[in-house]
Amino acid sequence: MSSEIVDFVAGLTLVDHHVHGAYRGDGPEERFQNALNEANNAPLVDPGQVYDSQLGFAVRRWCAPLLDLPPHVGPHEYWRRRAELGELEAARRLTRAAGVGDWLIDTGFTSGEFLDLTEMAAVSGGRTHEVVRLEAVAEELVATLDDGAEYGDAFRGALQVRARDAIGTKSVMAYRCGFDHDLARPPSDAVAAAAARWRDVVGASGTARLTDPVLIGFGIHAAVDLGLPLQLHVGLGDRDLDLRGANPLHLLDFLRDHDRSGVPVLLLHCYPYEREAGYLAQAFETVYLDVGLATNFLGVRSRELIAGALELAPFGKQLYSSDGFGPAEHHYLGAALWRRAVGDLFTDWVSSGDWSGSDARRVASMIGRDNARRVYRLG
Amino acid sequence: MSSEIVDFVAGLTLVDHHVHGAYRGDGPEERFQNALNEANNAPLVDPGQVYDSQLGFAVRRWCAPLLDLPPHVGPHEYWRRRAELGELEAARRLTRAAGVGDWLIDTGFTSGEFLDLTEMAAVSGGRTHEVVRLEAVAEELVATLDDGAEYGDAFRGALQVRARDAIGTKSVMAYRCGFDHDLARPPSDAVAAAAARWRDVVGASGTARLTDPVLIGFGIHAAVDLGLPLQLHVGLGDRDLDLRGANPLHLLDFLRDHDRSGVPVLLLHCYPYEREAGYLAQAFETVYLDVGLATNFLGVRSRELIAGALELAPFGKQLYSSDGFGPAEHHYLGAALWRRAVGDLFTDWVSSGDWSGSDARRVASMIGRDNARRVYRLG
Amino acid sequence: MSSEIVDFVAGLTLVDHHVHGAYRGDGPEERFQNALNEANNAPLVDPGQVYDSQLGFAVRRWCAPLLDLPPHVGPHEYWRRRAELGELEAARRLTRAAGVGDWLIDTGFTSGEFLDLTEMAAVSGGRTHEVVRLEAVAEELVATLDDGAEYGDAFRGALQVRARDAIGTKSVMAYRCGFDHDLARPPSDAVAAAAARWRDVVGASGTARLTDPVLIGFGIHAAVDLGLPLQLHVGLGDRDLDLRGANPLHLLDFLRDHDRSGVPVLLLHCYPYEREAGYLAQAFETVYLDVGLATNFLGVRSRELIAGALELAPFGKQLYSSDGFGPAEHHYLGAALWRRAVGDLFTDWVSSGDWSGSDARRVASMIGRDNARRVYRLG
Repeated sequence: MSSEIVDFVAGLTLVDHHVHGAYRGDGPEERFQNALNEANNAPLVDPGQVYDSQLGFAVRRWCAPLLDLPPHVGPHEYWRRRAELGELEAARRLTRAAGVGDWLIDTGFTSGEFLDLTEMAAVSGGRTHEVVRLEAVAEELVATLDDGAEYGDAFRGALQVRARDAIGTKSVMAYRCGFDHDLARPPSDAVAAAAARWRDVVGASGTARLTDPVLIGFGIHAAVDLGLPLQLHVGLGDRDLDLRGANPLHLLDFLRDHDRSGVPVLLLHCYPYEREAGYLAQAFETVYLDVGLATNFLGVRSRELIAGALELAPFGKQLYSSDGFGPAEHHYLGAALWRRAVGDLFTDWVSSGDWSGSDARRVASMIGRDNARRVYRLG
Repeated sequence: MSSEIVDFVAGLTLVDHHVHGAYRGDGPEERFQNALNEANNAPLVDPGQVYDSQLGFAVRRWCAPLLDLPPHVGPHEYWRRRAELGELEAARRLTRAAGVGDWLIDTGFTSGEFLDLTEMAAVSGGRTHEVVRLEAVAEELVATLDDGAEYGDAFRGALQVRARDAIGTKSVMAYRCGFDHDLARPPSDAVAAAAARWRDVVGASGTARLTDPVLIGFGIHAAVDLGLPLQLHVGLGDRDLDLRGANPLHLLDFLRDHDRSGVPVLLLHCYPYEREAGYLAQAFETVYLDVGLATNFLGVRSRELIAGALELAPFGKQLYSSDGFGPAEHHYLGAALWRRAVGDLFTDWVSSGDWSGSDARRVASMIGRDNARRVYRLG
Repeated sequence: MSSEIVDFVAGLTLVDHHVHGAYRGDGPEERFQNALNEANNAPLVDPGQVYDSQLGFAVRRWCAPLLDLPPHVGPHEYWRRRAELGELEAARRLTRAAGVGDWLIDTGFTSGEFLDLTEMAAVSGGRTHEVVRLEAVAEELVATLDDGAEYGDAFRGALQVRARDAIGTKSVMAYRCGFDHDLARPPSDAVAAAAARWRDVVGASGTARLTDPVLIGFGIHAAVDLGLPLQLHVGLGDRDLDLRGANPLHLLDFLRDHDRSGVPVLLLHCYPYEREAGYLAQAFETVYLDVGLATNFLGVRSRELIAGALELAPFGKQLYSSDGFGPAEHHYLGAALWRRAVGDLFTDWVSSGDWSGSDARRVASMIGRDNARRVYRLG
């Protein structure tokens, strides 16, 4: 019974519903090291720290064999072989081994450094789909405005154009100002006033980084009006983020109103608030969640995280993601650790008689693939 | 050793210290489905979601055999057989299989739809005892008042009458306004002013729903003055509730004063704050806790929840409850999952040599029965 | 493989980086009982509650054999034998069995009742080092001041003298006012004004207990200026403490500035915020953590706590401590439970192939000993 479920999960083609492009070209070891530490966005004083972590151990254990190295190979050998293969070949091997059929790619933070949608499809052998980051749309727009009063219509227009071929939108409100703000649809004059203030700041500073809760909230409502599923970054991120404001419970008032729209809201990552997110997923028809990103960072402990997500949240409300970004170790590890955790947990639950084997296989398919297909209307 | 403890726990007659009446009569499948989703108090858009959850799987696994069905039977067959037996026969089977000797019934939310104290005793074969819900007493009272100044004495009088045969009181403050308010005993003029405001609202709206923290706090102090154990809803509930305000740590100032009274305060449910509740149970002589309701919703994961409750809280400060309400699956599952978790955990702890077998049996009896008997002075 | 790692961890000489003196002389059973309940700082109404807890069971299981008693001996026999041996002989046996080579002793709360640095070294057979508690330095100083304006320089001077032979400093800000304050370096006039206010209070009341966030914050910055590692009490403590304010996420703004200093900040205990602390340890180069104190109180459940700490926090950022204070059961149990948890967890992770055996031994050495040696520059 045990190996039957493990085998089933191992063979399941996944939808990675929140991910970014892998690196396009070769780079120095420092880039790789910093990309393995999501939380610390300053250059690492002690890069060795990156390898002495659950993530570092998981990379050496699970990714090494895909680079023709033995499991648990030392960091020095790992990097040497990786550099020898080159970034693209590493990305090719790791993304293909992930067993992902569809990648839903957040294009809000891309540059020439990352593979674009077409390249990711070619490298990975999977299909790619675009998720538009709302704050990026606003930041491209603001410098072009003559005054704040134009902002509302201009943003809606720009979003419609940018989202024409997209299958979802995403907000990083948690990073920019936290969720602990009034998230009711802001009136036009408040939007105009906030846009005017921001336009002045951008004009003076020359950089456009949106942190105003009124404009971010406006963007979220505009995205919901389009009817596309809305992804929200929740919980852990780098030190720019105040983890207190990234608690999804602050979304309560928003969700009470929002639920009537029927537009899916997908809570991403969620650690350490995965139980709170699960509560919301049970309480609101429109709320979904994943525990991507954290899965990778927890390595061998990801099993407990994934088990914790499997508490209150209905099985139809959970999705798989890697949040891979940069080194394709993330794209692969997300899938490898998810398969391992789900395979182990479900095998235990079937062995103890709590679940049936057919239910276990069905739930694995739902979370790994079918829920995402339904929510994003993938063909 | 293993089977000895499992057998002991299986044979223990429990006190279910927080529960409601089961349904009295037959109803449509929608009623059953909605009652399996505590958090979502709107009609379910996708009722199938209810069955694809830890709770749904636990119902199919553990309750099906009591309805003469095989474990893991499909939802359709489950409902068909349940409808065939009828609500009362299902309730009879499920409540009797729970192995509960005493049910402590919250009568604050009853109507003709639910079995009353006498009927629950007859159906279940156990004894029943009443717990009076404070907000219900206030809501029955408010429309009869001539002015706000009467409220204080009138509430105390009404509570004394209502609680004459009760063994405890209960507040749903967490639902109504959260705990993050000043919970010191309010002065008479503040109570009168709040009551006058509420009386006006009730007069205008025709509905009496108490949400004022001054009046709810007054009710709590009045209940403590009676000397009866006080139950407080903590943590998860439906979407009416703001989970942030339902964190029991907000009770700190209240408990610092309250502890001198010696009146037991019982924190109900507690998820996802069971560790915070355990901390309070260790810090304050009067604080007790349970993890009812959440136990049912977590199904196979309830073991970890119950293990988490067994951290800081002294074993003399923990109780069992199902929070069963409506379909008697809840009344049974609470007991079945509690027995299973405690049996498994204690067997492990005895096997590893951490606990002795006699301690394990003693603690199981304390939590399942003896603590409740002592706290509520059951004969 | 299993027994190899367990044996390795069992043989590892630890650095207990946060601990207090054991009792010097004999005392009544009530003192012992109260010292086993950290959270309740009032005299216990029901002392038996202390023994019916994970900590009580752990004492009877693990400490009894060191007093020549069988595991799980009853509380009455345990106390009788303990009293027969005397406090010092119990302390000698328990501290020596802990296998600790270096004790880093917080001397901020000592009196004649506790062994001093020299005595702890003699009793335990280990080396001892001093950690200076900042609030104690301030409280010794305040009554000697002529006015508030002297406070800043006087505190810096007194701290320099007190810390001359110390290897670290410690603040109990979490206890005194919580972390949810502005922790930027306060300007001189604000310090002088706060000191003047405090001096008046002390003069009027005759007792000096520092609770002012400006002065506590000033002390923390003064300590960082000395360059010594700074310990911060985080999370659980007794009922004087408001657990909401003891959440380390409130330190975010402070840490963003502080990180440039390179001075280690050690988050102590952390329960129930060990995951939040781990997030900070990943995000900031200077942040370290332990889960001492809670480890003892959780007994058999300490394995899950220690596993939870081994999530986001890099392995180079975790330390061992017992927070032993008074009865030397704490000094021993911290080590015994840590070894047991680490031995079990790492054995599992090596058995499943996730970790290599040599990595497991290396990480155990880092957390149990080497990280502390490096951070505190122990010889």
